[in-house]
Amino acid sequence: MTNPVLVEVLRGDHVESAHRGSLAVFDADGQSVWEFGDTARPVFPRSAVKAIQALPLVESGAADAYGFGDRELALACASHGGEIAHAELARSMLARAGLDEAALECGSHWPSNHDATIALARAGKSPNSLHNNCSGKHSGFICTCANSGIDHRGYVDAGHKLQQMVREAMEDLTGATHGSDNRATDGCSIPTYAVPLRNLAVGFARMATGQGLSSTRAKAAKRLFAACMAEPFYVAGTGKADTALMEAAPGRIFVKTGAEGVYCAAVPELGLGIALKCDDGTGRAAEVMIATVLSRLLRSDEALAATLDRQANPPIKSRIGVEVGSVRPTAALLEPGR
Amino acid sequence: MTNPVLVEVLRGDHVESAHRGSLAVFDADGQSVWEFGDTARPVFPRSAVKAIQALPLVESGAADAYGFGDRELALACASHGGEIAHAELARSMLARAGLDEAALECGSHWPSNHDATIALARAGKSPNSLHNNCSGKHSGFICTCANSGIDHRGYVDAGHKLQQMVREAMEDLTGATHGSDNRATDGCSIPTYAVPLRNLAVGFARMATGQGLSSTRAKAAKRLFAACMAEPFYVAGTGKADTALMEAAPGRIFVKTGAEGVYCAAVPELGLGIALKCDDGTGRAAEVMIATVLSRLLRSDEALAATLDRQANPPIKSRIGVEVGSVRPTAALLEPGR
Repeated sequence: MTNPVLVEVLRGDHVESAHRGSLAVFDADGQSVWEFGDTARPVFPRSAVKAIQALPLVESGAADAYGFGDRELALACASHGGEIAHAELARSMLARAGLDEAALECGSHWPSNHDATIALARAGKSPNSLHNNCSGKHSGFICTCANSGIDHRGYVDAGHKLQQMVREAMEDLTGATHGSDNRATDGCSIPTYAVPLRNLAVGFARMATGQGLSSTRAKAAKRLFAACMAEPFYVAGTGKADTALMEAAPGRIFVKTGAEGVYCAAVPELGLGIALKCDDGTGRAAEVMIATVLSRLLRSDEALAATLDRQANPPIKSRIGVEVGSVRPTAALLEPGR
Repeated sequence: MTNPVLVEVLRGDHVESAHRGSLAVFDADGQSVWEFGDTARPVFPRSAVKAIQALPLVESGAADAYGFGDRELALACASHGGEIAHAELARSMLARAGLDEAALECGSHWPSNHDATIALARAGKSPNSLHNNCSGKHSGFICTCANSGIDHRGYVDAGHKLQQMVREAMEDLTGATHGSDNRATDGCSIPTYAVPLRNLAVGFARMATGQGLSSTRAKAAKRLFAACMAEPFYVAGTGKADTALMEAAPGRIFVKTGAEGVYCAAVPELGLGIALKCDDGTGRAAEVMIATVLSRLLRSDEALAATLDRQANPPIKSRIGVEVGSVRPTAALLEPGR
């Protein structure tokens, strides 16, 4: 099955590049609301499922034991830009468990936020694992272990107790088996499992509504979503699409990107979960897809839809700041009646 | 027409993302040697045609008047990484015409070479237009004007005498009309014209062989290609695919990337020109495509083909340096008999 072109990149009046993709919008009962392309093919959700991966942090009592509020929980679900506030909060989370960045097994990289990279370099510093975009998630993992008396070392390995807890949560939410057959390794060294988009969409509808979950899990899911929607800077950061999308409708939209063009999202008031992937793995296209889908789903709020439409149609500028093109959803993605 | 999948991105054993594209290999007589996908659809070649755009610099006598050697000519054809040697050579080119970076109309951006960006920041500096990856091309444009007594101001505009000279060269080489209908603006503010890949491939075969060109133009083309192949660092820079590909076979391969997943290339000993585009505009895929095509065309040199095959199959590593996936050409691109 060839997925449809969902996003076009224009230079002047001409389509310069095009992005294909697949998309699933489902409710918590597993009913399909909107699908494009092959939603049954397993895809690696990568960082888009960090909120599900953070469930054990809350369910185990670790979040309460260490006094984590919305910011810490948001950072545990984040792919952050490595800004000072992000790195310092990850450090603080580890410190509350009596640990420091030496416990992180995610590796390090320069901040994805360019200004943060320049500031770090100007200060004569180099990045450490706290600047890794996944440091909040990993700090959450380590705190979960520490509070439960589990040796945190090796927490990134598929066989570690922590990853078993994460896998159980993922299987419960998505209904998809997570085994060695569909497992690979993410950039931050933890396992990632290929799951159909339709299962991911149902999973995020369940996260938003609590339907089909134990009361403990439903409560933890709502708490994590509420934290992310309350503190979108800590889920991504300055200049990031996820932060802008959640800031556009405080408390009404949850979104989380994953590497290779993935998004998982939810609109709690509609009881819907969303999962999408750009075939070629390009973030700019996935960002246009998610903004377009959210605009369509929330179009009864005209002001919000207009804001989301602007995010779904970003300009391309020359190096002197002149608009020379744009990225836009295709007619297929905008078709009426959705 | 849907272009075929030519490159796959694997995570573990699973295809995580895929890239479609089109590809044309032609000789200077316009004979097709190898084609994939829609090679008649116009695409913006962007920076991939800088060597053609540099013809007026040589043909007008400016390159000789200012004493430009291989390095300066290579930089005039370059998308460089903004390393110190690149920025300083662009400065020197302008100085020989009595000008400085104030004459550049390309705008500025942080160096694409990450180490160069960190070094600049550590030195407390910010980038100027000399660090723009196109500064060599623009310096060549300005020097062409200066030596010919043309006011260089506004040299980026389609109506400027310099751009008329560039357009004439592009039309002569590719045989494709360059008009307002197929024009848009590149990131560095100059016009870019959408041209079918097959025309670009023929154009690069003509650049390599001189066939069908005036003797002055044929000589200038060979001089520019020889300069780029002699000084591949100045065409791209440290860690760049173009530099690695040309270093793999000194004097035997010319390659030049363009934004949005384009490559133009030539193998002079075979008299062939190559042009390709990844549909979705992704550089990683275009790099695998060009390395694969070059390996296939030069497979009689087994050691060279093995080197090119390594470049056609780059690993994907986690943040701690463990190989977790790879990028590779598809069976379609590798099919026997090509």
